[in-house]
Amino acid sequence: MPSAWLSDLTRASVWLKLETVQATGSYKIRGATNALARLKAARPDVTIVTTASAGNHGQAVALAASTLGIRARVHLPATAPDAKRRAIARLGAEIVDAPTYDAAEARAHEEAERDGAIYLSPYNDADVIAGAGTVALEMLDERPEIDTLIVPLGGGGLLSGTAIVARARIRNALMVGTEAAASPVFTAALAAGRPVTVDVHDTLADGLAGNMDADSQTFGIVRDLVDRVMLVEESDIAQAMRDLILKERLVAEGASATAVAAICAGDLDLQGRNVGVILSGRNVDAHVIARVLS
Amino acid sequence: MPSAWLSDLTRASVWLKLETVQATGSYKIRGATNALARLKAARPDVTIVTTASAGNHGQAVALAASTLGIRARVHLPATAPDAKRRAIARLGAEIVDAPTYDAAEARAHEEAERDGAIYLSPYNDADVIAGAGTVALEMLDERPEIDTLIVPLGGGGLLSGTAIVARARIRNALMVGTEAAASPVFTAALAAGRPVTVDVHDTLADGLAGNMDADSQTFGIVRDLVDRVMLVEESDIAQAMRDLILKERLVAEGASATAVAAICAGDLDLQGRNVGVILSGRNVDAHVIARVLS
Repeated sequence: MPSAWLSDLTRASVWLKLETVQATGSYKIRGATNALARLKAARPDVTIVTTASAGNHGQAVALAASTLGIRARVHLPATAPDAKRRAIARLGAEIVDAPTYDAAEARAHEEAERDGAIYLSPYNDADVIAGAGTVALEMLDERPEIDTLIVPLGGGGLLSGTAIVARARIRNALMVGTEAAASPVFTAALAAGRPVTVDVHDTLADGLAGNMDADSQTFGIVRDLVDRVMLVEESDIAQAMRDLILKERLVAEGASATAVAAICAGDLDLQGRNVGVILSGRNVDAHVIARVLS
Repeated sequence: MPSAWLSDLTRASVWLKLETVQATGSYKIRGATNALARLKAARPDVTIVTTASAGNHGQAVALAASTLGIRARVHLPATAPDAKRRAIARLGAEIVDAPTYDAAEARAHEEAERDGAIYLSPYNDADVIAGAGTVALEMLDERPEIDTLIVPLGGGGLLSGTAIVARARIRNALMVGTEAAASPVFTAALAAGRPVTVDVHDTLADGLAGNMDADSQTFGIVRDLVDRVMLVEESDIAQAMRDLILKERLVAEGASATAVAAICAGDLDLQGRNVGVILSGRNVDAHVIARVLS
């Protein structure tokens, strides 16, 4: 969808990719569907998968698994919005509570090692990354002139998948990842030359919060294929959520708003470019919507 | 998109059709594109069309006309939201101000008679109705089990087009139109057996407000093919707009919200049915969003 507001602001042509109206309310259904379909084909006897999720991947796994007749167990942090938690439960998955995303991921790994359960990472998985990459394939099919992608960055699955597509399909693509300053995982990793553990604080971009696996393949992909990773402060995430509702009449969750906030910050020179902005999801609680609008 | 909220409320399966994320922010682009493409094919020398619009049809005509190299003149009431007015101007159409929709339509008719201008009605036009009908074709292609359509009702173009599709494609379809109580045009017409002029009051459903042509073909189609026309009060429209934002994370304009409000009123027995609800557009001003949320 063209954005007159952001196009005027940047003197660029800006399009929004509305993964907000995707099934389960985020792009995550793409990777989960791809990964579980391939798993089922390779191992038709699979009965259960386990995963860790900030919430959207968990919904996606719950839906994709139930479609395939597989049970799903989702390790979920206390920071997950009710909107995500309720949707996972409604889709029939088992929820295992953890205090933080990092704890949820650690417990899911332990369970996989202890019980031989199949663990499906929300980002460190080639099939999940490939599924996420289809977002960029669709954008370029519809708007071949796009030369710039601005992509919310948490574990790096969406940015990795779309960067692989962009490097293969766009000459001189500009690839930008947007990270919550409250969870500066890639900013720190890129500075250190390897994944390092950072402190993670509460953020409106709950879907981006949490450290990545120490061996995450997304680190190398982002390091090699992405031009710039930007940090976005909470107040700017809130402002972007508010602006999306009032100026574009779109509800988007904090993770999505980081990409818009990065544009609004004005540090990126986008003049004359054809910019695709991925609004990754819309699963935000009512009280948060009320708060950012107040 | 499935709506867990409305499905639970009605013990039915309810899907929302998101014309809110359509080009120009409403379903109107369908009818305008169809009508102007056919006009251009029949009369390649056409240089200008004139229309009257509550706002969304005007945007659609402006976009479709500019694509075809035709100029557009839109007679627009003072009640049109800024969001609609600005979009029409941005798309390069000429705006002619009128105090009300009825006055806008009368002036557009006068202009057509006086100057021989080609007038494109937002509802009383077979090509516009056919374009609107494609909403229902898409819904039934994706969800063939749909047996009930709930459709916002203003001039009757969307309800007529979708009712024609439903009667042709669905056995025992239940067709419901939802009208703003502030502009009870079809309720009055159906009671009288012919179009009659009603008083029109301010309404959140600005897109539905205004009387219809005395000879509108939509009257006979709605009378013959629609099961029920329901009136929706302003407070219920506001509540439905609020609920759509907070429970479904969707911004929809008042016209769209009438369809949701009709479901929430509980007068319709939908239990066990497969219900398609058309969210016709999302072009609502920021101050209105803030007001319905406050």
